[in-house]
Amino acid sequence: MSGACVIGVDLGGTKLLAGVVDADLQVHHRTQRLVPRGDTAALLDAVCAAVADASAVAPMPVAAVGFGIACLMDDRRGVAARSVHLPVVDLPFADVMRERLGLPVEVDNDANTAMLAEWRAGAARGHDDAVLLTIGTGVGGGLVVGGRLTRGAIGAGPELGHMVIDANGPPCPGGCPGRGCLEAFVSGEALGRAGTAAAVADPDSGLGRALAAGRPVTGPLVTELAWDGDAAARAVVASRGEYLGIGIASLVNILNPSVVVVGGGVIAAGEMLLGPARAVVATRALAPARDVVDIVPARFGEEASMVGAAMLVLESRGLRSPTAPPPAAADRAA
Amino acid sequence: MSGACVIGVDLGGTKLLAGVVDADLQVHHRTQRLVPRGDTAALLDAVCAAVADASAVAPMPVAAVGFGIACLMDDRRGVAARSVHLPVVDLPFADVMRERLGLPVEVDNDANTAMLAEWRAGAARGHDDAVLLTIGTGVGGGLVVGGRLTRGAIGAGPELGHMVIDANGPPCPGGCPGRGCLEAFVSGEALGRAGTAAAVADPDSGLGRALAAGRPVTGPLVTELAWDGDAAARAVVASRGEYLGIGIASLVNILNPSVVVVGGGVIAAGEMLLGPARAVVATRALAPARDVVDIVPARFGEEASMVGAAMLVLESRGLRSPTAPPPAAADRAA
Repeated sequence: MSGACVIGVDLGGTKLLAGVVDADLQVHHRTQRLVPRGDTAALLDAVCAAVADASAVAPMPVAAVGFGIACLMDDRRGVAARSVHLPVVDLPFADVMRERLGLPVEVDNDANTAMLAEWRAGAARGHDDAVLLTIGTGVGGGLVVGGRLTRGAIGAGPELGHMVIDANGPPCPGGCPGRGCLEAFVSGEALGRAGTAAAVADPDSGLGRALAAGRPVTGPLVTELAWDGDAAARAVVASRGEYLGIGIASLVNILNPSVVVVGGGVIAAGEMLLGPARAVVATRALAPARDVVDIVPARFGEEASMVGAAMLVLESRGLRSPTAPPPAAADRAA
Repeated sequence: MSGACVIGVDLGGTKLLAGVVDADLQVHHRTQRLVPRGDTAALLDAVCAAVADASAVAPMPVAAVGFGIACLMDDRRGVAARSVHLPVVDLPFADVMRERLGLPVEVDNDANTAMLAEWRAGAARGHDDAVLLTIGTGVGGGLVVGGRLTRGAIGAGPELGHMVIDANGPPCPGGCPGRGCLEAFVSGEALGRAGTAAAVADPDSGLGRALAAGRPVTGPLVTELAWDGDAAARAVVASRGEYLGIGIASLVNILNPSVVVVGGGVIAAGEMLLGPARAVVATRALAPARDVVDIVPARFGEEASMVGAAMLVLESRGLRSPTAPPPAAADRAA
C-alpha cells in the first residue's frame, strides 16, 4: 500500500457519495448524503462537508480529490455545459473545489469515471473496445475505443442515453431536445412509467395491486415485484430489456465493441433485463460483431463512479498504474 | 514526387475503379468497369485486369496495391465476413491478390478508405474526431476517434448505415437482420423508393410525370428533378435529409465529433440534402456538442475510396507521411 490515498466523489442527480480510496482500490470510508436541490452554494457546501468528513477519517494523507459529476462537460471552457439536476452549469467546478479544498482536484462526467473503474478493474478489464451504459434515473454512457477512454472533440461525449432509437418517439425527458432517445425507454423513470401503465392495464397483477394500495410504481418497485415473480412486472422489465437490446445492437454495429457493461440502479433486475437485451442483439445486430460482444453487468455497482473518480486522481498523481491488477473479488469496492 | 506510385482500387457493389496514385496524391490514370455479378472467379479476374491496365500506364514503378472493398471485414480471420453484393465472403482476399498480382497488398472496408482520404487530405483534415457517412446504394461509415481511424474490436465497424433510428421501423434491406436502420431511410435506394411513392401520390408533379412516362424513379432521377426545381422531388430529398439529420444527431450525442462528412452518390443533392440535416441536428442534438460540429460534403467525391485505398499503401510503404499536405484544390483527385 502506498503512503497516500485520495477521495473519490460521485456527485449524482440525487445522491452524493464520497469515499476514501487507496492505491489498491480499497475503500476505507464512505459517506453518503442527499444532494441539496436548487442552490449552488448549498451544493458546494454539501460537497465540501462530505470531503471533510472523508478526510477526517482517512488513514493516510489525502493527495487529491476526484469528482464524477452528473453533467455534460465542455472542455473548451472547463465548465459543466449541461446538467439536468445539478446547479453547476457554467461553474468552473474544478477551480472552485481546488480553492475551497486546498487539494488537487480533477473532474469528469460520472459515467466516464464509472467506465474508467470498470475498464481498469471491473467488467471491461482487458478490453480495448468497450461500452458502458449506466441506467439510473437517466442513462449515462462511457466508451473505450482502441484502448483509450473517449470523450469527443470537446469532452461532451459520450451521451449514450441520447442516441436515437425511435425517430418519431416521445420527447426525451430531462431537458434533452431530442425525441425517442434510449433514455426515454430504458431509464429507471421509464421503467416506472411502463410499470404504471401495466398496473392500470392489469389490476389483478402484483403491479396492479400495489398501485391500488397506493404505492408509487417506481423502477425499484417494478424490479422488486419482478423478482417476486409477478408476471406483469417481469414483462415490463423484459420490454425495457428489449429496448436496451436495440440500443446495444446499434452500438455494436457502430463501434464493434468486445464488451458492453450495464450498470446503474436498473441493473438490479439482472438477467431479467439482460437476457432479453442479449436476445435482441443476437437477432438484430450484424454478424460477426454481434458474435464477439459480451453483454455483462457492471462489477462496481453503485460505487463505480466514485471508485473511478478516485482512480482518475490516483493515476494522474502517479499513485496507481493504469496496468495495476484489480482488487480481488472479495475485496472489491462494490 | 517520389520514385514510385501505387494503385488504389475501389471495389464497390456495382463499380470497380482503379487509379494510379503518386505520393502527392496525383491520380495519373483511372480505369473503371462494372463488377461482374455472382461469380468469385470472374470478380477476381476483373480486379486483376483492372490492376494490370493501370500498371501498364503507370509512369513509375508500382510499389503496392491498396483495396477498399464494400464488405464487412473480420480481422481475426483476415477475410470478408459479410458483403451484400460481392462474392468475397470468407475469401482471404489480400492473400489471393498478393499471390496473383505479385505485389504487396492491403485491404480495408471501402468506407474506411474513404474516411482515410477525407481525414488526411479532404473535408475532415485536421479533425481528431470525425464521422464519414457515404450514402450510395447503401450507407457506409467511417470514424476517427481521438486522432485514430477506428475499426472496432475485430475490424467489423463502423457500420454507421446500420445504426437504428426507428426501433419499430421497416426491415433493413440488403440482408441486415435489423429494422429501422439509417440505411433503410437515406440510401440511394431509399431515395428512389420515397420518390416512387411521391410520384404515385402526386401524378402532376415532375416525379409523377416521369413515372407516367415510364422512367424508373431512382435516386439519381429524384436528385435531377429536385435540381430542376420540382417541388415533389425537393420534398423527397428534404425528407431524406431530415432522417439523415436524425442519424447525425445521434452520432453527435454518442461521439461528439467536430466534423461529419457526407459523401457517396446521394450527396449530388448537395444543400438540398444537407440543409434539412443540419436543421434537425440544430434542434434535436445536445448542446454544446451540436454547436461545434460542421456537417459538410466530402471533398473527394466518387474517388474517395480509391484515393484512400492508395493512401493506405502509400503510408504503410513509407511513400507518404500521414502529415503530408493535401493536394491543392485545383489538383485534387475529385
